[in-house]
Amino acid sequence: MQEKIISGFSKLTKAEKLTWVTRHYVADAEAAAGEIAGFTHADERLQQVLDRFSENTVANYPMPFGIAPNFLINGRVYAVPMVIEESSVVAAASSAAKFWLARGGFKAEVLSTVKLGQVHFTWSGDPARLRLAFAELESRLRLDAAYLTENMEKRGGGVGRIELIDLSDREPGLFQLRVAFQTCDSMGANFINSVLEQFSATLEEFAAAHPALQPDGKDLVVIMAILSNYTPECVVRAYVECPVDRLAGACKELGPAAFAEKFRKAVRIAQVDPYRAVTHNKGIFNGVDAVVLATANDFRAIEACGHAYAARDGQYRSLSNCTVEDGLFRFWADLPLAVGTVGGLTNLHPLARRSLDILGNPSAEELMAIIACTGLAQNFAALRSLITTGIQSGHMKMHLANILHHLGAGEQETREAIEHFRDKTVSFAAVREFLNSFSGNAGVVSKAP
Amino acid sequence: MQEKIISGFSKLTKAEKLTWVTRHYVADAEAAAGEIAGFTHADERLQQVLDRFSENTVANYPMPFGIAPNFLINGRVYAVPMVIEESSVVAAASSAAKFWLARGGFKAEVLSTVKLGQVHFTWSGDPARLRLAFAELESRLRLDAAYLTENMEKRGGGVGRIELIDLSDREPGLFQLRVAFQTCDSMGANFINSVLEQFSATLEEFAAAHPALQPDGKDLVVIMAILSNYTPECVVRAYVECPVDRLAGACKELGPAAFAEKFRKAVRIAQVDPYRAVTHNKGIFNGVDAVVLATANDFRAIEACGHAYAARDGQYRSLSNCTVEDGLFRFWADLPLAVGTVGGLTNLHPLARRSLDILGNPSAEELMAIIACTGLAQNFAALRSLITTGIQSGHMKMHLANILHHLGAGEQETREAIEHFRDKTVSFAAVREFLNSFSGNAGVVSKAP
Repeated sequence: MQEKIISGFSKLTKAEKLTWVTRHYVADAEAAAGEIAGFTHADERLQQVLDRFSENTVANYPMPFGIAPNFLINGRVYAVPMVIEESSVVAAASSAAKFWLARGGFKAEVLSTVKLGQVHFTWSGDPARLRLAFAELESRLRLDAAYLTENMEKRGGGVGRIELIDLSDREPGLFQLRVAFQTCDSMGANFINSVLEQFSATLEEFAAAHPALQPDGKDLVVIMAILSNYTPECVVRAYVECPVDRLAGACKELGPAAFAEKFRKAVRIAQVDPYRAVTHNKGIFNGVDAVVLATANDFRAIEACGHAYAARDGQYRSLSNCTVEDGLFRFWADLPLAVGTVGGLTNLHPLARRSLDILGNPSAEELMAIIACTGLAQNFAALRSLITTGIQSGHMKMHLANILHHLGAGEQETREAIEHFRDKTVSFAAVREFLNSFSGNAGVVSKAP
Repeated sequence: MQEKIISGFSKLTKAEKLTWVTRHYVADAEAAAGEIAGFTHADERLQQVLDRFSENTVANYPMPFGIAPNFLINGRVYAVPMVIEESSVVAAASSAAKFWLARGGFKAEVLSTVKLGQVHFTWSGDPARLRLAFAELESRLRLDAAYLTENMEKRGGGVGRIELIDLSDREPGLFQLRVAFQTCDSMGANFINSVLEQFSATLEEFAAAHPALQPDGKDLVVIMAILSNYTPECVVRAYVECPVDRLAGACKELGPAAFAEKFRKAVRIAQVDPYRAVTHNKGIFNGVDAVVLATANDFRAIEACGHAYAARDGQYRSLSNCTVEDGLFRFWADLPLAVGTVGGLTNLHPLARRSLDILGNPSAEELMAIIACTGLAQNFAALRSLITTGIQSGHMKMHLANILHHLGAGEQETREAIEHFRDKTVSFAAVREFLNSFSGNAGVVSKAP
């Protein structure tokens, strides 16, 4: 065991790290090291940029970078870059985009862009005294952080409302400052965290010195200060709508009215049943995350916020909604999306920068719209498959190519397999069995004169 | 606008797709196409494998692939491959791993591995008649799906309990079959979906023909059949524990007892305040998703399930818990993690395959343990930073390198900037200002004799 432990790993060179890991953890160490090192960009300077994003990096992990064209959003056409390893997601998005292109396209409206941060602290004194001194504290907080907020204010952002929240009924002596921020086109994490850390210092100083908080002002202790990834006020609404009869062509199996009603029911199920809601929303995030990743935004933040938002009324529910009323089909989703188009890695990651180029270098609000519409498109396409042919037929046809390649199928075998599985259930075992029988036949055939 | 719309995009070759997108969406089309195409693996066959994972792929999107060594989990040491673009996550995981290595390491216990799927259907008839015929239906379902379940049963998995759920109080006539599955070392999505689609066919046939359900048996309509990504019975518990005095060395700022208490409070805050809980759990998923990605599992599924699980009692809460009792510090998390180590892309993605090699080709249960411990390590490291130095100092020091590189800082400038910002707030503007002043000085210096 001892030889599998290492001190100073981070100080090794990239090559040394890779050698050490493979030598101690992989049977075919040299082959593994070579194969992993093969996932490196030929341009050394560019590779160094990538290496610096994280620590102990030994290679680039490749994710498929694809394009979903024909997205009409708020009257403008986009080709949306998507980074996703799951088959049929980009195909589904493209197909939904094209469907709605002929029906007025997607619309999106940013409802608000307020971000939040918190300074958590404990104090054993009387909350009333804190509230009394709060106005004075607030101006002190703003003043002391002015050196940090100055630039953001020039760009139109800055610190918004500051609230004192009393949580002492849930944990003795627990309070927080909940602070609203506007961060313009940046996601703003570093700005928010820097301001909050300054707020922490000011808060402790203020409490120790302010007469109204004595003699126990020195007992006020900051536990931590950090942005909140829960941003229920940073929300964009994405929607599509059309007269029900314009849904003709949505599928072969159902007429437009039957399709609309079955679709509405499918959304409704995700409203009432959390087991379905999780999967339903997962489908929305297939689209959302693919664009979030392609633009080097933080998908963990987006996911955490979105799912907590889905549970905001006490039951986890669908993030999308559908109505069929007075002959009008409406399908929409409100998604909290705290993303940026400047700062962070958005302009540092060379391919993210190109994603933003392809999107026409959008503002953060425009990117929110694009992401939400891609999520809604994904949801539309998934539900359309589910309520008609079922998810497996499309998905497994896509995956069939992976399996065939993995089993080393030749060109002719691949063609025949695709033909064979057109109306059959695809599974790894079934494909292997088919290929085995096929090789048998092929053998016989090739022996024939 | 018309020229930005395209028909038959998916049928273009990869090069044609890239040319079309850049020509119609990017100002410096040729440069963009060249740069994007540069993110392609030199090995053409291998690149084709990657291209097939998704659709309309034009390049590989590189994500940093790093290693967090020294993870002692259930008595075995792992070097954990992590794929994450956010700075300081791998460093934090490594640091927490090393800390606990000297204190008994991480422990993890798989509580259950049941996966779920659903067949949603509507029926206008009397639910009592459905319940009456259910035993018969159930054997018919199992029988008809035997051709699909046979192989999985040989491996020890298969279909578990099948429940009839009546949701007609929430939506008229709405019911579901909720089905439990065991899928061994595979995530099992395709298996589950195939079985459920067979169940759908059987259910409709059965209803149309069974005497007890007439004359309205034909009205039973399946809305959709699909796995549920909500798997609250597929859960692993990860934990660390040690006597409080063994926490000495956790940080410079606090003694072990004070550290334990402040840490406990930080976890408690995430239990009582959803705004903190989202960020807290986001940190856990920084670790979780990095391993999920590195092993080509589906992070959207893991995220959706985990966050819905965090809201299961009606309020969104921390997924981790901490107690300090009788001189013992305990920190743990129960995480639902439906992952696989066979099937899907796990063995098709060449670098995911190498991740699994590095992890010693674990079973799905062992991988659940590794992922959960990495998430817990991440949470430990994040809270440790937050309650002591604050998140910004570590994080921005890491990010400083990115900014310096982006601004084209030379070697000496970089060294001096790192020194300069050791005790100052890092921001893009501050770094640029420093470099400007520095160039000025350097100019003067170089003119000196």
